[in-house]
Amino acid sequence: MLASSRMRVVDLIRRKRDSGELSAEEIKFLIEGYTHGQIPDYQMAAWLMAAWIRGLSPVELAALTEAMLHSGKVLDWSDLPGRKVDKHSTGGVGDKTSMVIAPIVAAGGLIVPMISGRGLGHTGGTLDKLESIPGFNVNLSLVQFREALAKCGYGLIGQTEEIAPADKKIYALRDVTGTVDNPFLICASIMSKKLAEGIDALVLDVKTGSGAFMKKNSDAEYLAGLMVETGKRMGKKVVALITDMDQPLGRTAGNAMEIAECIEVLSGGGPGDLRELCIKLSGWMFFLGEKSASVAEGCKTAEEMIASGGARDKFRQIISQQGGDARVVDEPQRLPQSRGKLDVTSTAAGFVSAIECERLGIACGVLGGGREKKEDAIDPAVGLEFHCRLGDKIERGARLATLHYNSDARLAEARQLVESSYTISAQPPKPRPLIHKVISA
Amino acid sequence: MLASSRMRVVDLIRRKRDSGELSAEEIKFLIEGYTHGQIPDYQMAAWLMAAWIRGLSPVELAALTEAMLHSGKVLDWSDLPGRKVDKHSTGGVGDKTSMVIAPIVAAGGLIVPMISGRGLGHTGGTLDKLESIPGFNVNLSLVQFREALAKCGYGLIGQTEEIAPADKKIYALRDVTGTVDNPFLICASIMSKKLAEGIDALVLDVKTGSGAFMKKNSDAEYLAGLMVETGKRMGKKVVALITDMDQPLGRTAGNAMEIAECIEVLSGGGPGDLRELCIKLSGWMFFLGEKSASVAEGCKTAEEMIASGGARDKFRQIISQQGGDARVVDEPQRLPQSRGKLDVTSTAAGFVSAIECERLGIACGVLGGGREKKEDAIDPAVGLEFHCRLGDKIERGARLATLHYNSDARLAEARQLVESSYTISAQPPKPRPLIHKVISA
Repeated sequence: MLASSRMRVVDLIRRKRDSGELSAEEIKFLIEGYTHGQIPDYQMAAWLMAAWIRGLSPVELAALTEAMLHSGKVLDWSDLPGRKVDKHSTGGVGDKTSMVIAPIVAAGGLIVPMISGRGLGHTGGTLDKLESIPGFNVNLSLVQFREALAKCGYGLIGQTEEIAPADKKIYALRDVTGTVDNPFLICASIMSKKLAEGIDALVLDVKTGSGAFMKKNSDAEYLAGLMVETGKRMGKKVVALITDMDQPLGRTAGNAMEIAECIEVLSGGGPGDLRELCIKLSGWMFFLGEKSASVAEGCKTAEEMIASGGARDKFRQIISQQGGDARVVDEPQRLPQSRGKLDVTSTAAGFVSAIECERLGIACGVLGGGREKKEDAIDPAVGLEFHCRLGDKIERGARLATLHYNSDARLAEARQLVESSYTISAQPPKPRPLIHKVISA
Repeated sequence: MLASSRMRVVDLIRRKRDSGELSAEEIKFLIEGYTHGQIPDYQMAAWLMAAWIRGLSPVELAALTEAMLHSGKVLDWSDLPGRKVDKHSTGGVGDKTSMVIAPIVAAGGLIVPMISGRGLGHTGGTLDKLESIPGFNVNLSLVQFREALAKCGYGLIGQTEEIAPADKKIYALRDVTGTVDNPFLICASIMSKKLAEGIDALVLDVKTGSGAFMKKNSDAEYLAGLMVETGKRMGKKVVALITDMDQPLGRTAGNAMEIAECIEVLSGGGPGDLRELCIKLSGWMFFLGEKSASVAEGCKTAEEMIASGGARDKFRQIISQQGGDARVVDEPQRLPQSRGKLDVTSTAAGFVSAIECERLGIACGVLGGGREKKEDAIDPAVGLEFHCRLGDKIERGARLATLHYNSDARLAEARQLVESSYTISAQPPKPRPLIHKVISA
């Protein structure tokens, strides 16, 4: 049995190697066999490299996503009234929309079963940010998750063992075999996990620019197209917004600092770019979730949820529900605060013409706000506060950013990273829109 | 240590994936790490697939060959007088030149430390053929091998554990990861093993045609070019003859039958194509081994070694030396004989215009003369006798081939395979030369 399986696996590897196409059944055989340990790592590694280089057809990609999705539990909330929608972002620096959007959309009457990840590389992660709220527990059981959804209309948890185990196993293998950064494999990984959440509709926030995994618009659009197409093939409503990550989103990067910033937006304030993006993404969720007749109407609903205080209430409610100290919403000073602050100033006068946004994310990690290895602990209090945006005219000596730190150990390194992230020029840069494009099926 | 090694391995995998070049030091790190178990199968599998698809530069190929060569013992016969030369064939149907060439060249005063393989797929293997001689032992220790070389001027043995263990481990991985059929990886595999024999010069017989692994001349020439170039980089004299395998070489395929045919050639008879190719390959070995001033002179020496009986004596001598019954040289009927014979005849009259030579090799395997799995036992007595060659004009009912068999079990299948291998047409085919091209550095 094993020998004959391997025989077949070699044929599937060779076919992909030679740019051929696998049937949905063959992809399923491969993924099931690998997940159950019948196909060894080395054969999967060879297939993944062939797929990385040769790509996947739409049929193969849908089959791969489906096989990974069905490798574990597919959640079912059909007993809960209301459509189930979610948002997923490909990650960036200061990208904190989840904590604003989920309460807005839940306040508007949709169910948001949001399963998020940790910080990866230079980017922050929703789970790490939530854990900066004292007591907040992201590790709910599926029973507890259901309770949260039934009571609050949403829940904010981490990946569980039951959901898409094939993705977990394949991702670990991709990590050590140089097959991570590929649109087909990224698409299958994201979509299998998100569709296992049991949602009807999904809004994707695909980041592009110096702080995104996809630096080029064309790469971001390609991935977005694959995800929208794959979601459609699987009978879900999916839209992707290509959004700007050539500079940090909002005014902070750092776990507790970002929670405070989200509370500002939920309270009707906060930075304009963050607020605008949260409204737009929420508007799309209301529209795809059939709560509004248009995206514009959905955006209006989102604004109302903020203005009425409903979204802010929802945030208080979920914090309590998940064991956290909900007083932080009204007293953000209860969030962890760093001991020291250090300003980084400009050595030149002129326009902020470019920001190496990934480097800012790395600086945040150097301060202790991110992980270099999976095992690293995170300091929730540290991070960066940004004082200027692309196109701003600044004087020499003006503050570019402020480091919030707890240790002097790598402060100089972080400072140098931040300083070198900004380019000041005589001419202003060409303005970039916040939302570059909307891709729908 | 392991973690940091893996980090680096991922970089090497990614570089090859992106069509970049690895340094000789990096290739060495990869091969040594894999051979010693520090780099896991799955990382090597990913790298091999990337190398299969992207190819290797001349520097990478030489480094890979060198690293595999030095993964084990490199034999040293410098204490034995005379230059050390060998021949390697990429394999075909009825390809039996080793048992003729080695005695000729040893009789002419060169040392031939020949390490051969088993039958692979549809092709026969020198070791399997030799073992059809009662008592012949191909599994000599290196001490026994040295004794044979010192006494007889040559030895005919199989791969040992000590020689190029990296190749053994990598080949086993390639076999199950769809990365076998690639000129770069084949070149490194062949050359590392052959150069570990401690030779000064190597003559390569690269087969092309319907019975070869490389069906197309261009593929055969490409592989030949890589091997000649790699040998030259490593300071060895190497030449490659591109020779025809669009029909079986000689009149038989089957282990004992091929030994008998070799004895015919060593006795001054035998089929013209086999005799001619043996003379040419031996001539090149004499030339590269500096026993003759030209290839033509070397061919003359080879003919003399046959005419004088010297080569035949050498064959008797090595059989005795390696524990076999040397009486078979004068009484070939002592070789295993099949119980039954079955003629396959032509259903049409005309010219033999094409032969599916690989299919004939498979038919030989079906009769029991080859292996389908590595563990299969071989029947030395069975095989095929060929009665016509490409371009022959034949009548309806004429014998195409005779099956020599011991079991009725799969006889019909073998018969059908043989029958369907021949194409009879009204027009004769375009003649093909026995030697298509000679490639030297």
